[in-house]
Amino acid sequence: MFFSVAKLTTVVSLTHVALGAVGPDCVNGPLKSNKICDRNAPPAERAAALVAALTQEEKLANLVSKAQGAPRLGLPKYNWWGEALHGVAGAPGINFTGAYSTATSFPQPLLMAAAFDDDLIFNIGTAIGIESRAFGNGGVAPFDYWTPNVNAFKDPRWGRGSETPGEDVLVLKRYARNMIRGLEGDNPKERRVIATCKHYAANDFEDWMGTSRHDFDAKVSPQDLAEYYLQPFQECARDSKVGSFMCAYNAVNGVPSCANTYLMETILRGHWKWTDDNNYITSDCEAVLDISENHKYAPNLAAGTALAFISGTDLSCEYESSSDIPGAWSSGALNVTIVDRALNRLYHGLVRAGYFDGDAAVYANISAADINSPTAQKLAYQSATDGIVMLKNDQTLPLPLTQGKKVAMVGFWANDTSKLRGGYSGPPPFLHTPLYAAEKLGLVVKTSSGPVLQGNNASDTWTSGALAAANASDYIIYFGGQDTSAAGETKDRLTVAWPAAQLTLLAKLSKLGKPLVVVQMGDMLDNTPLLENKGINSILWASWPGQDGGPAVVDILSGAKAVAGRLPVTQYPVNYTEEVPMTDMTLRPSELNPGRTYRWYDSAVQSFGYGLHYTSFNATFGKYKPNFSIQALLADCSKEFKDTCPFPALPIRVSNTGNRTSDFVALAFVKSETGPKPYPLKTLAAYTRLRDISPGKPAETSLEWTLGNIARHDKDGNTVLYPGKYQVLLDEPTQAVLEFSLRGKEAVLDKWPSAPE
Amino acid sequence: MFFSVAKLTTVVSLTHVALGAVGPDCVNGPLKSNKICDRNAPPAERAAALVAALTQEEKLANLVSKAQGAPRLGLPKYNWWGEALHGVAGAPGINFTGAYSTATSFPQPLLMAAAFDDDLIFNIGTAIGIESRAFGNGGVAPFDYWTPNVNAFKDPRWGRGSETPGEDVLVLKRYARNMIRGLEGDNPKERRVIATCKHYAANDFEDWMGTSRHDFDAKVSPQDLAEYYLQPFQECARDSKVGSFMCAYNAVNGVPSCANTYLMETILRGHWKWTDDNNYITSDCEAVLDISENHKYAPNLAAGTALAFISGTDLSCEYESSSDIPGAWSSGALNVTIVDRALNRLYHGLVRAGYFDGDAAVYANISAADINSPTAQKLAYQSATDGIVMLKNDQTLPLPLTQGKKVAMVGFWANDTSKLRGGYSGPPPFLHTPLYAAEKLGLVVKTSSGPVLQGNNASDTWTSGALAAANASDYIIYFGGQDTSAAGETKDRLTVAWPAAQLTLLAKLSKLGKPLVVVQMGDMLDNTPLLENKGINSILWASWPGQDGGPAVVDILSGAKAVAGRLPVTQYPVNYTEEVPMTDMTLRPSELNPGRTYRWYDSAVQSFGYGLHYTSFNATFGKYKPNFSIQALLADCSKEFKDTCPFPALPIRVSNTGNRTSDFVALAFVKSETGPKPYPLKTLAAYTRLRDISPGKPAETSLEWTLGNIARHDKDGNTVLYPGKYQVLLDEPTQAVLEFSLRGKEAVLDKWPSAPE
Repeated sequence: MFFSVAKLTTVVSLTHVALGAVGPDCVNGPLKSNKICDRNAPPAERAAALVAALTQEEKLANLVSKAQGAPRLGLPKYNWWGEALHGVAGAPGINFTGAYSTATSFPQPLLMAAAFDDDLIFNIGTAIGIESRAFGNGGVAPFDYWTPNVNAFKDPRWGRGSETPGEDVLVLKRYARNMIRGLEGDNPKERRVIATCKHYAANDFEDWMGTSRHDFDAKVSPQDLAEYYLQPFQECARDSKVGSFMCAYNAVNGVPSCANTYLMETILRGHWKWTDDNNYITSDCEAVLDISENHKYAPNLAAGTALAFISGTDLSCEYESSSDIPGAWSSGALNVTIVDRALNRLYHGLVRAGYFDGDAAVYANISAADINSPTAQKLAYQSATDGIVMLKNDQTLPLPLTQGKKVAMVGFWANDTSKLRGGYSGPPPFLHTPLYAAEKLGLVVKTSSGPVLQGNNASDTWTSGALAAANASDYIIYFGGQDTSAAGETKDRLTVAWPAAQLTLLAKLSKLGKPLVVVQMGDMLDNTPLLENKGINSILWASWPGQDGGPAVVDILSGAKAVAGRLPVTQYPVNYTEEVPMTDMTLRPSELNPGRTYRWYDSAVQSFGYGLHYTSFNATFGKYKPNFSIQALLADCSKEFKDTCPFPALPIRVSNTGNRTSDFVALAFVKSETGPKPYPLKTLAAYTRLRDISPGKPAETSLEWTLGNIARHDKDGNTVLYPGKYQVLLDEPTQAVLEFSLRGKEAVLDKWPSAPE
Repeated sequence: MFFSVAKLTTVVSLTHVALGAVGPDCVNGPLKSNKICDRNAPPAERAAALVAALTQEEKLANLVSKAQGAPRLGLPKYNWWGEALHGVAGAPGINFTGAYSTATSFPQPLLMAAAFDDDLIFNIGTAIGIESRAFGNGGVAPFDYWTPNVNAFKDPRWGRGSETPGEDVLVLKRYARNMIRGLEGDNPKERRVIATCKHYAANDFEDWMGTSRHDFDAKVSPQDLAEYYLQPFQECARDSKVGSFMCAYNAVNGVPSCANTYLMETILRGHWKWTDDNNYITSDCEAVLDISENHKYAPNLAAGTALAFISGTDLSCEYESSSDIPGAWSSGALNVTIVDRALNRLYHGLVRAGYFDGDAAVYANISAADINSPTAQKLAYQSATDGIVMLKNDQTLPLPLTQGKKVAMVGFWANDTSKLRGGYSGPPPFLHTPLYAAEKLGLVVKTSSGPVLQGNNASDTWTSGALAAANASDYIIYFGGQDTSAAGETKDRLTVAWPAAQLTLLAKLSKLGKPLVVVQMGDMLDNTPLLENKGINSILWASWPGQDGGPAVVDILSGAKAVAGRLPVTQYPVNYTEEVPMTDMTLRPSELNPGRTYRWYDSAVQSFGYGLHYTSFNATFGKYKPNFSIQALLADCSKEFKDTCPFPALPIRVSNTGNRTSDFVALAFVKSETGPKPYPLKTLAAYTRLRDISPGKPAETSLEWTLGNIARHDKDGNTVLYPGKYQVLLDEPTQAVLEFSLRGKEAVLDKWPSAPE
């Protein structure tokens, strides 16, 4: 779906949520004796009783995001459209008002992921879940939120890549698991809020060379589907049992996602058994319209609407009338069983979120007082510092930014609050820029804005202003990169190059002979010209760091915080975007494709997993068994899904050989020549973030992993564990190698249902 | 589907198969350079190439059972409708002519199953598979056959129960497995013929009290669905990987089977992963029409037709125009992706059967010479003898039927060749009645027909004829029961009572003081009046024994063959049909239902598994481990589907303590009070048929079983192995008991995807 901030202002006034009117009145209202109000009845029966009480007209009015409820029964209107990607965000179903005027704004997920810390994601998810529920309890928002976005960020041009945790499947899965658990909570009776994994599936494309996500047909092989594009969704549905899914705009192998029975029934509900609570699927907003209008998969809107519901979609998200439910009904293509199936799933979902339980709900006591809590504020700041990645440093960083030091803060992000958040944001309680933080430190700051993307020529004003600031200071800090005008929802990037005007200005600054640090914000760029320029001493990547992004960056610059983030994406060279079309979904290298992600592309400027520290680390493996029997490993495991069977944990030891305490992200990649050719260069198989390792006090831990982390996918998409030799590579670049063998016969861990041809 | 013999005569002339025209001409025809003709190309690509070559009009003409082919391309017409329930049978796609005028006719499946011998089923399947392929190779039949019928025979009234192997899930599954393996063969490249498991799902109902299978909505709980109704289909799809499925007329939980995405996509293609060869689903014949016409699930035929294909059906079986594919297409509801999906699956199926390989096909050398082979003839006879069950015997049987003995053969089946075969039959090379066999033995036979079902009064003619024959003979053999006029396709039985006129005649015969044996044919009846009448010395049940049924029965009567069959169904008392409506699908006893099958009904006249011998047996267990750890059992098993994990085989020892060599069917039932209440009375968990046990030479064997055989299904349909005490009961009635315990924690062997509410 796409929902621009511009639209927000007009649409918010249409919101159907009335303040304080959470759920129907189960005490005195017309539904009081309907089983929907009986908290002790089984949830499915409660939902069914409500559906049974609706007239056909009322039923049809509740299959769209702006659900009309049933005034006759005291069932309130309900706008399903909530957003909370990195904090409660602007959406038609959310009304920021009164005690609910702001919400904590965390960094974009891509920066969260750069911290490589599962607990951090869980804590952020919990904080967002609490605030979201507070909005819901306050009657100014729904109980369901359309987050997380777990599409794999496989092409650096994708405009929404920063909404995701990056390009790696393991990171995507761990992010999904921890974010969902945080948002939804652990209570077996009630979800804190309903999370929604989106966009199912293979949605990593906005608009490129005349093709848009609304008409794009992603051609994906079973191998790539099973190994890559669907892995995060498998985690959501099968393993994390998320409350809801969103089907995507694009088609997959000829069938629009929201009309795709293979994706929604065969894989999602069948193979992954995502049917326990009759979890529901919402369409992306106007995706139902796309079925007929853009994919031409149905002759008219009514037929396309019927097809979506028949095929397994349960809710149509509309801007305004972008599906035709009355038409689908009157044509007879949409019948009462399908309608009731969808409504049962939707209301069952709301029952499981306590929507009908009023004050008796498990989470009824979460209130406006829980918004912007000190814990959440601290976490917003901490997660930004944890994610920042250092890409270059000649010992210039950290800078001694003590009171009175003269610092030039140059570039368009130095003091622009609008640049901190990125897409899908809400109003935070504050937005602290780098300048704000520097002034807090008592630095003497000269600022000068700089050329943004659109200005490919560095104007004289900018150049002279920047040079004046720099000449008057001890240190130069340049804040630049691409902003959301280069890429975002509906817009893919044309290039991963630094804007020419910024490079021109940087070249001039680099000749001043002063310490020059570049803080690259936004999406990842090819930093080659900066890495090669010795006049540029250091580079940090800070993405979209959220409400406290300025202090986070400045505290890293000063060394108040140690830097330890790692790249969650490959840094591709500029020519990469010429080498493969965005529409090419293949991952493996071929004549038409140099390969995608660090697993298949061997010419990165800086690799996935790269990141420097203010100290140095020595990481080694502990003692590990040299070989394992595949059959014995399987015999030892009673898990239903064999890819989740544990593999003996990997012992590692990390010594801080420098002189500053720092976190260290331990990354273990597996490399082998087993299974189908070609072989990936390496594959992330386990990771953890070790906190606060001080010099002279080595940290020891064991990395948990599973058979799925060392298995591969064959041509048909089956997950297979192959016998043979395996290497485990520790850190990026590699600083230790461990070898082991798997003996025995190859074993299928997951048999993949093949797609219709 | 229903296809009456009356219809056969008119429809056969419409058959689209031309003699000798198997598949397109791949040497000189227009398709010769199309990949469909490239035997070395991957099957899926071959199918896709053919689909790509078709015009849209041609495509639409090939989605129905009478597929029009494409004359332009030299693609012949193909009538998908083949039948081979117990031998190649009459069907619109089969033309009995010339060298293909007859085919071996085996007993009805219910009698095959009564032999309790998996190898026998496999051998019959192989024989039918060879003959079917011969017909296909001869160009007088298709390469696909709509058999086996694996619906569970849970209500004694069901008109088609004799087409199935009975009421027990284990027998149904073993039958499915062995029949499919026999029909399709073991060659990994090519199926001998394509078998079709039907009717998916919960189709065990024809027409009762104003409800017909065409409008019946079977309400089935997840527990009953997973535990009972879908078990045989799970075997077909998941474990035996059968080539095709047929969706049923009836609806299941509100959704017509042929429009049921839960059954076809979530369960069949998703949960059971039945997608490997893009196996196809055909509708039952006119089931597509039922969607709109009878279930009122779509507003008109075009919409219902589109819905069937969208929901996962790939072929519409029509009598004449009973679906509206052109209308579905022109309305736009049926689009090219869905059409191509269906055609790809269908042609992929035919590729995998060698249909496009001409003389190079694996099974190309099977010819008319392989029809009615000596092996098949012998098997038809043997299987009938193996299945016959003795229900009463006061030492009268076996009769000393030596030459010159005077025998009265009374009753309507003594010499009526039309009564031997039952439903879904073809023309066999011969039909040998009991009279034929008796005369072969040189007996002096007096025959007299008798009252059939429709005559509930025994006419004077019959009575006097029967008494005259009896008075002139040493022995009286009465052949009776219900015939197909009482029950069959489209007709369920109203009663399980013996027809009154037959009882009246039997009463008279029983007072003559001569040895009187009753051979009960057709469906099982309540034999109480015969069991209680001391003037009736013995009862055999012979069902529909096929082309050599007469000699089989007579050889049992004479003792030339020992009798060892067991009841594959419960013998219910007459009042049972008053106690539960046919429309009630529940299995467990309740106020409205006395319980169904031997597992839940405790007042059988004679139980499932009952059967007497001409000798006596002593069966005991060998040494067995007294307890097992659930977790250790699972740890020892690397099977993908945990219910198929082996459980240590059960050692048994069987001694013949009489004086005649005989087979013995060893039945092992499990009984426990574990898992959800109520507990079944007992459950068949393992069986085998031991052959030719002679007195003084005990047979020892071990019964194979799996964790699934001792597991139970919870309310949600999950297969769960529960800790606790288990008893194993050997034989029916029980003659030995073994006990063991399962320790540890309960384990889910199969997590069931729940249905939409």
